[in-house]
Amino acid sequence: MFRKLVTLDEARKIIRQRFSPEPLAIEEIPLSRALSRVVSQDIVATLDIPPFDRSTVDGYAVKAEDTFGAQENKPVRLKINGKANVGEMPKAVVKPGTAVETVTGAPIPQGANAVVMLEDTELEGDELHVYSAALSGENIMKAGSDIRRGETLLRRGSVLGSGEIGTLAAAGLLKIRVNAIPRVAVLSTGAELVKPGRRLSAGKVYDTNAYSLGAAVAESGGKPIYAGVLPDVATQIQDALTKALRSADLVVTSGGVSVGPKDLMPQVLDSLGKPGVIIHGIAIKPGKPVTVASIGEKMVFSLPGHPASALLIFHLLVQPVIQTKAGRKPDLPLQLKALATMKMFPAKGRRTFIMVRLEMDAAKRLLAEPVPTGLSGAVTTVARADGYVEIAENQQFIDAGEEVTVNLLKAPRPSYIE
Amino acid sequence: MFRKLVTLDEARKIIRQRFSPEPLAIEEIPLSRALSRVVSQDIVATLDIPPFDRSTVDGYAVKAEDTFGAQENKPVRLKINGKANVGEMPKAVVKPGTAVETVTGAPIPQGANAVVMLEDTELEGDELHVYSAALSGENIMKAGSDIRRGETLLRRGSVLGSGEIGTLAAAGLLKIRVNAIPRVAVLSTGAELVKPGRRLSAGKVYDTNAYSLGAAVAESGGKPIYAGVLPDVATQIQDALTKALRSADLVVTSGGVSVGPKDLMPQVLDSLGKPGVIIHGIAIKPGKPVTVASIGEKMVFSLPGHPASALLIFHLLVQPVIQTKAGRKPDLPLQLKALATMKMFPAKGRRTFIMVRLEMDAAKRLLAEPVPTGLSGAVTTVARADGYVEIAENQQFIDAGEEVTVNLLKAPRPSYIE
Repeated sequence: MFRKLVTLDEARKIIRQRFSPEPLAIEEIPLSRALSRVVSQDIVATLDIPPFDRSTVDGYAVKAEDTFGAQENKPVRLKINGKANVGEMPKAVVKPGTAVETVTGAPIPQGANAVVMLEDTELEGDELHVYSAALSGENIMKAGSDIRRGETLLRRGSVLGSGEIGTLAAAGLLKIRVNAIPRVAVLSTGAELVKPGRRLSAGKVYDTNAYSLGAAVAESGGKPIYAGVLPDVATQIQDALTKALRSADLVVTSGGVSVGPKDLMPQVLDSLGKPGVIIHGIAIKPGKPVTVASIGEKMVFSLPGHPASALLIFHLLVQPVIQTKAGRKPDLPLQLKALATMKMFPAKGRRTFIMVRLEMDAAKRLLAEPVPTGLSGAVTTVARADGYVEIAENQQFIDAGEEVTVNLLKAPRPSYIE
Repeated sequence: MFRKLVTLDEARKIIRQRFSPEPLAIEEIPLSRALSRVVSQDIVATLDIPPFDRSTVDGYAVKAEDTFGAQENKPVRLKINGKANVGEMPKAVVKPGTAVETVTGAPIPQGANAVVMLEDTELEGDELHVYSAALSGENIMKAGSDIRRGETLLRRGSVLGSGEIGTLAAAGLLKIRVNAIPRVAVLSTGAELVKPGRRLSAGKVYDTNAYSLGAAVAESGGKPIYAGVLPDVATQIQDALTKALRSADLVVTSGGVSVGPKDLMPQVLDSLGKPGVIIHGIAIKPGKPVTVASIGEKMVFSLPGHPASALLIFHLLVQPVIQTKAGRKPDLPLQLKALATMKMFPAKGRRTFIMVRLEMDAAKRLLAEPVPTGLSGAVTTVARADGYVEIAENQQFIDAGEEVTVNLLKAPRPSYIE
């Protein structure tokens, strides 16, 4: 198979061209379980919110014109004519020269066009003294002033957080149509891999990637499906991938993509269907051996076996695909500026990513400290890192003390934010 | 009941003093379900990672001293003596003058102390030509160099993300002891409230807060328990709170705390147990009527009925309590700097929070635009806002064009980050 490195930008373009951005199936779910889900179509309000004119204060509903001229030392006198409560349409009516007692949230009685605040009044028997003139509309929240019937509440592709869920509840929507969660099969390959919890015989190591990539799938809004640990045997990998492609919308494998004699993955991928391998190697570091295949409507991402490299490539290439398949815009990484603690060099001609840990120095400057990767096999790199620094293909180096942009892999730790 | 406003800082101190920061019960769960959970004790590695010396490259395991003097034009010649594979301890041994073929990840054969990269060699029959001298230890990842047996992998209180889960998998830990998820009962009060999905009769509005606060509980790492919608009737609220305090670790109510005649909540809270109400009003805007009670080991937060105020107070006061009860450090809000688009005034003597939406102007400057709250009842404010600006009690105002700190309520939208 011909192996031609593409740049990271080319790889992203190839992936975008090959894969359908249409989200998956649509499901209807209860609002109480809708957190973090993606709405599948524009949601339009079927009622005004509030549904009626409401008082925004405790006080008295009046005709504004009846209060004209009222002052601290020259109150207007009105006759009390009943009471409005929250939760029911008031029977009392405001006729000229009268006022109806009301509370925050109660519907405005017929005939009233303003509410005078309690603190601007005094009650003497059933006579109300009003010490401040009200403007028409004052202290009234008009029907539909928050949301108007027919107004679009949420756009297709919105991700539901607590604020959005509150808006949908206010509109009375108990069931919401959302995009299905993309199912992502995660598969590890390597003769040396053993599932955690089993006995570790000589020469073996525990499989890390099935768990870290599975967690990364869930963090990205996908549903991980554990497709197992496989030895470097073409027929077994082929069977497992065929099965994974049937049960999942996307497949992520790790291991078996570098140039060693047992790197069967690219050959196997090409045998699964058309068009087959669309990317075979990217000019980045780490992650050069990454292979991507397009099999019918589905994609397979073959990531390196090295856990830190696999997670980084996942963030760069796979997370955007999962989020697009979920029908939403991909998250962009949160970024912070920090000062490099040492000189950082790119790999020649390759976009280079350096994992860094953020630290605050005595002068409260944020520092980006490269995480030593313990040669190329360290599994703890990502847990120790806060993010990564990107060095362009044509950049010579980043100098010690230079300001760099750190792309965060997780929310900042309290220790380095104020 | 005596009503004395406390400052926000005093309120936070009173809450900290009254409530036990000890996390709840400890549970053992499978690693595959551990995402976002909080580890309940320091986790120590029970094995070295890697468990054996590994090759970090494809090439030949050698004795470094055998390669001394090797140069491009003057290769050292070694005799091939077998092969090392990944996943098994090699039977081949490196004796003086010999080399063992190896691949990335394979255990280092006995007798070898370095690996020569494939590209620095040439094979002629069973004779290996080495064109570059190797240093002792070169291209070998030593046993325990990533994680040493007995080393602390994760501290108590760590929140498990994909990187941490990878570390635990590498250490072979299939079951993890984590803190129980705090159960938070959410209860709405108000005669005007109707559950979404039911018919809305005249004068009623849909309950928003049970859903938005329930979602906020889940976003904070708690488990929401929907405790229902209650009318403003003391005995019914009392019964519901008594039940909620039995089934939950924390209770959040909304509505019924302002100064109107139906504001029963403070009286009811004081009747539930000792010490009862510990905060009754905070000098903030919005949220002045917030009431907090301590009932035995548990707390009840009574938030305003206004949805945006309720969610804001939740973020300021309740989220840190849930996260502390989950055994972790509370999240601090992510902050961005932006320019105020208009003058913002605080309420006199009260810490004031202004909901803002972030926009990028043509010059790529980030702007903080106050979200109109549609008087005090808007339910859409939080969905429309990206965060809030805080104005200190003693600050006069924020000027238009002034740089302000925006505390984010959710991850930034792609539209205003580069």
